[in-house]
Amino acid sequence: MKDVLVIMGSASDEPVLEGCIKYLEKFGLSFDKMIASAHRNPAKVAEIAGSAAKNYKVIIAAAGKAAHLPGVIAGHTILPVIGIPIKTSDLGGIDSLYSIVQMPKGVPVATVAINGAENAAILAAQILSLKDEKLKKKLIKFKKELQAG
Amino acid sequence: MKDVLVIMGSASDEPVLEGCIKYLEKFGLSFDKMIASAHRNPAKVAEIAGSAAKNYKVIIAAAGKAAHLPGVIAGHTILPVIGIPIKTSDLGGIDSLYSIVQMPKGVPVATVAINGAENAAILAAQILSLKDEKLKKKLIKFKKELQAG
Amino acid sequence: MKDVLVIMGSASDEPVLEGCIKYLEKFGLSFDKMIASAHRNPAKVAEIAGSAAKNYKVIIAAAGKAAHLPGVIAGHTILPVIGIPIKTSDLGGIDSLYSIVQMPKGVPVATVAINGAENAAILAAQILSLKDEKLKKKLIKFKKELQAG
Amino acid sequence: MKDVLVIMGSASDEPVLEGCIKYLEKFGLSFDKMIASAHRNPAKVAEIAGSAAKNYKVIIAAAGKAAHLPGVIAGHTILPVIGIPIKTSDLGGIDSLYSIVQMPKGVPVATVAINGAENAAILAAQILSLKDEKLKKKLIKFKKELQAG
Amino acid sequence: MKDVLVIMGSASDEPVLEGCIKYLEKFGLSFDKMIASAHRNPAKVAEIAGSAAKNYKVIIAAAGKAAHLPGVIAGHTILPVIGIPIKTSDLGGIDSLYSIVQMPKGVPVATVAINGAENAAILAAQILSLKDEKLKKKLIKFKKELQAG
Amino acid sequence: MKDVLVIMGSASDEPVLEGCIKYLEKFGLSFDKMIASAHRNPAKVAEIAGSAAKNYKVIIAAAGKAAHLPGVIAGHTILPVIGIPIKTSDLGGIDSLYSIVQMPKGVPVATVAINGAENAAILAAQILSLKDEKLKKKLIKFKKELQAG
Amino acid sequence: MKDVLVIMGSASDEPVLEGCIKYLEKFGLSFDKMIASAHRNPAKVAEIAGSAAKNYKVIIAAAGKAAHLPGVIAGHTILPVIGIPIKTSDLGGIDSLYSIVQMPKGVPVATVAINGAENAAILAAQILSLKDEKLKKKLIKFKKELQAG
Amino acid sequence: MKDVLVIMGSASDEPVLEGCIKYLEKFGLSFDKMIASAHRNPAKVAEIAGSAAKNYKVIIAAAGKAAHLPGVIAGHTILPVIGIPIKTSDLGGIDSLYSIVQMPKGVPVATVAINGAENAAILAAQILSLKDEKLKKKLIKFKKELQAG
Repeated sequence: MKDVLVIMGSASDEPVLEGCIKYLEKFGLSFDKMIASAHRNPAKVAEIAGSAAKNYKVIIAAAGKAAHLPGVIAGHTILPVIGIPIKTSDLGGIDSLYSIVQMPKGVPVATVAINGAENAAILAAQILSLKDEKLKKKLIKFKKELQAG
Repeated sequence: MKDVLVIMGSASDEPVLEGCIKYLEKFGLSFDKMIASAHRNPAKVAEIAGSAAKNYKVIIAAAGKAAHLPGVIAGHTILPVIGIPIKTSDLGGIDSLYSIVQMPKGVPVATVAINGAENAAILAAQILSLKDEKLKKKLIKFKKELQAG
Repeated sequence: MKDVLVIMGSASDEPVLEGCIKYLEKFGLSFDKMIASAHRNPAKVAEIAGSAAKNYKVIIAAAGKAAHLPGVIAGHTILPVIGIPIKTSDLGGIDSLYSIVQMPKGVPVATVAINGAENAAILAAQILSLKDEKLKKKLIKFKKELQAG
Repeated sequence: MKDVLVIMGSASDEPVLEGCIKYLEKFGLSFDKMIASAHRNPAKVAEIAGSAAKNYKVIIAAAGKAAHLPGVIAGHTILPVIGIPIKTSDLGGIDSLYSIVQMPKGVPVATVAINGAENAAILAAQILSLKDEKLKKKLIKFKKELQAG
Repeated sequence: MKDVLVIMGSASDEPVLEGCIKYLEKFGLSFDKMIASAHRNPAKVAEIAGSAAKNYKVIIAAAGKAAHLPGVIAGHTILPVIGIPIKTSDLGGIDSLYSIVQMPKGVPVATVAINGAENAAILAAQILSLKDEKLKKKLIKFKKELQAG
Repeated sequence: MKDVLVIMGSASDEPVLEGCIKYLEKFGLSFDKMIASAHRNPAKVAEIAGSAAKNYKVIIAAAGKAAHLPGVIAGHTILPVIGIPIKTSDLGGIDSLYSIVQMPKGVPVATVAINGAENAAILAAQILSLKDEKLKKKLIKFKKELQAG
Repeated sequence: MKDVLVIMGSASDEPVLEGCIKYLEKFGLSFDKMIASAHRNPAKVAEIAGSAAKNYKVIIAAAGKAAHLPGVIAGHTILPVIGIPIKTSDLGGIDSLYSIVQMPKGVPVATVAINGAENAAILAAQILSLKDEKLKKKLIKFKKELQAG
Repeated sequence: MKDVLVIMGSASDEPVLEGCIKYLEKFGLSFDKMIASAHRNPAKVAEIAGSAAKNYKVIIAAAGKAAHLPGVIAGHTILPVIGIPIKTSDLGGIDSLYSIVQMPKGVPVATVAINGAENAAILAAQILSLKDEKLKKKLIKFKKELQAG
């Protein structure tokens, strides 16, 4: 079992996710990275999401425009799902943000800022640290680094 | 086989869809009406959408907020999917609209106005009239009624 | 009679429509392409739209800013009209989107994403496939290509 | 020949236009009032707009949502066209405003505020006063009334 | 007496106004061009606007951001004032548009599109043509040029 | 000489300003209250604003829609001008906010929240406390009341 | 040590949080509920947030308008912070949403929908279930209830 | 004691603040400049803000995105706090603007335009001139320079 599944709707989202990967590695979290579109390959997404609870502890999902991936995954799992709205060239990412954050009652997505890839990784670390004292120490150390600027 | 599947994400969308039902009946189209949430019951939606091409010719899907239902259905079928963004109490329905209309390349949703339930039915009739001369005549008659005001 | 009329409000919209043309050709659909502004040449648009039902099965109309072309055409025909909102340099295309999607009761426009030219063509193919088994097979094959990524 | 043609897209716009009528009467302008939808009855609108220059000096057109009426009329005439965006229940009238004000090069619409019916009448009076000394005096008197509060 | 006063809030608006000047010249309208900020030099603006009715027939005013110039001028004159909202680098010009178009009852500004400088000139020509048969003919000819594309 | 001039664009803004008055009185500030529209009575506004530095220390100006009053006043004075954007029925007050806060370089308006009338008074007190030790103590006491909830 | 700290910026947010409380109780989570404003009582918020890691596992923070509470708390703790943007009467809650979700790199807030109080509780349960098998079973059961509609 | 504390949330805001520094120097105001994030180093911000009244007369705070710095500082001091919303690459700075201007009752922030750094300095000078006749003269001179253009 790995800590985090990082999944994105399109290969074009990959550069934004670099910051996420960097921070997952910084905190020593194990992860897999996949590309799967909620719209182009819904069966694959359903299968990944449906079995994710056996293989991962937290899911980070990034998508742009009518960004359904994080919400669709959240519909298939009881794992915490962190959503990253990808900036779009026409609407700046408001479309992605609304499509991810405005989830209906029953199926939350923990949404971070538009293109907030690093924060998705940090949030995953915070969640995982609840049962990992070593990770907790890394987060406390990171908090001090932030303060030091 | 029926003409249209009308599907909505929540029972609370039903009053908005009355206008849709009224116009489907006006044009003599056969239809089924279902409630199924893309988020609360994704397996059911996947099953309905995946087999829709055997039972229906056109799908009308309505949803609000992070309104994934129309797009998710479009991901599972080659039928034309008409999306109705439901008005929301906080953002007026912009969230629903963006979540439905801003679909990525490969998976279109034919989006009508916020709460534009009647137009969804009329659009379904226009699509179905391409192989139904009687329906075409009804649409021409309807066009004249519109002109008469 | 051809399958699709592609009409745009301005020659400057042509680069956006390349993706549409590419997909119409991919699906083997016959089409004509025209430039006609709802504002600069309303009589021409009225004439084209008024007689379109004799020459075409589906209309794809693209326009930007106060983007009236798709709605004006829809006012003159019972054919399904697919609208493409063109991205604008100042408002990102929200103006185009609202002007196309927010049609009043009675006259729908099947709206796709801002600059969603490819999806307009795919939607046209989905509509036309209702009476064309060969096209249906092409769409099923395309769906599989999408899944394969 | 009358001074002003007041035209609205829907009978439901009529209450908003009362303020316009009141001010046209205040300034002693002659006018006709019509309801004609750019979408439901485009031929009628084209005919009215195309012959307006023979019967009127200024046109005031009000419409809501994808509010094409003012722009469509402006496409058919060289008369000054004043557009009133009608407030909408879901988007507050931003859709109407964008659809009216964002006209492309070549075909202006003189847009006033959302539901700014009174100002449409006052603007018409200002335009007509350029060749009417009596009207100019009424406007000067009105300006003083405004100042007096 | 000249036909049009063109006034802008800042020298940086000048490139946008080139299209306006070009069209004023195309229609043979006489005009003066001034730079005067409603905020930096209110007394100058008040003086220009207050005496404009003696020197001009129509005013075209362009401004960006909290774009008060057109409205402030309209407060001082009974001449028709045409407002051009200038595109802004942060908000795309929505701030300019709202500041110009949303005028309160009593003091209209005839607003054109964001950066719609050409249309401001054409609207001025339409207004002035009401008492100028030669200008009317130019506008009819221009309308035909538009139709010819 | 009084502490604060409270000025509003329209009598209809008065209920919103009650909170402002209440807090001015709470802090024992002397003030005058006036209604004067930047658009309907620009000369009066110019006169008031131009001579304000002789009679007041701080100006609070409230206005809605194309809310020019605070900026116009700021153009006429070197006193600090606090702007209150009034909520509007169609756009919620975004139009008022943009018209007040987006002032060009050289002429600031200290903008508070939409309908933030109380905060305008508190800000005035903070400004005036810089040379008034008694007022400073009242503000410190108020800060403690806030903390106590 | 309790599971969740529920903190809100103002007593007026309490009705929205009822749905949160209901779901925390449904999942058998222990919690404390507090009112503390990031602006009116920053020292108290700093103290609560700074020591929260000793007393709680997850924090749910709700606030409206310039909604700093969730972000300020996140600045003081390494616990996961879930933010609920409260709907506002003028801007619908977009101000609250932006103020909560758009956090800078280093300090994430897990944001749910505007007024999405129930989802905040469910997300907390998902996070806590990572080390609580019994809670995991409750979530699986809840997921089935959702499916059953 | 110095006149102004200039504080920004991130070193990346520094180029925007150059205009502020230039104008503070123009008016001969003494100031300190600091970088301190409300989120990354809240204790430092609390300390600076809490003791600011001993060292400064006015605070200028700039921040972007979920821009809490100005409001957080205002929570800790009775000094007037001027907020500068920094333009953001995705939302143009609307997120920063809402996060700064929409402060709740009790804790005002005097907000200037997006990236309005110069105006923040001018507003500080206006505030400080209330007890500084020499500064008042500089502002009157500056006002004349503005008029001269």
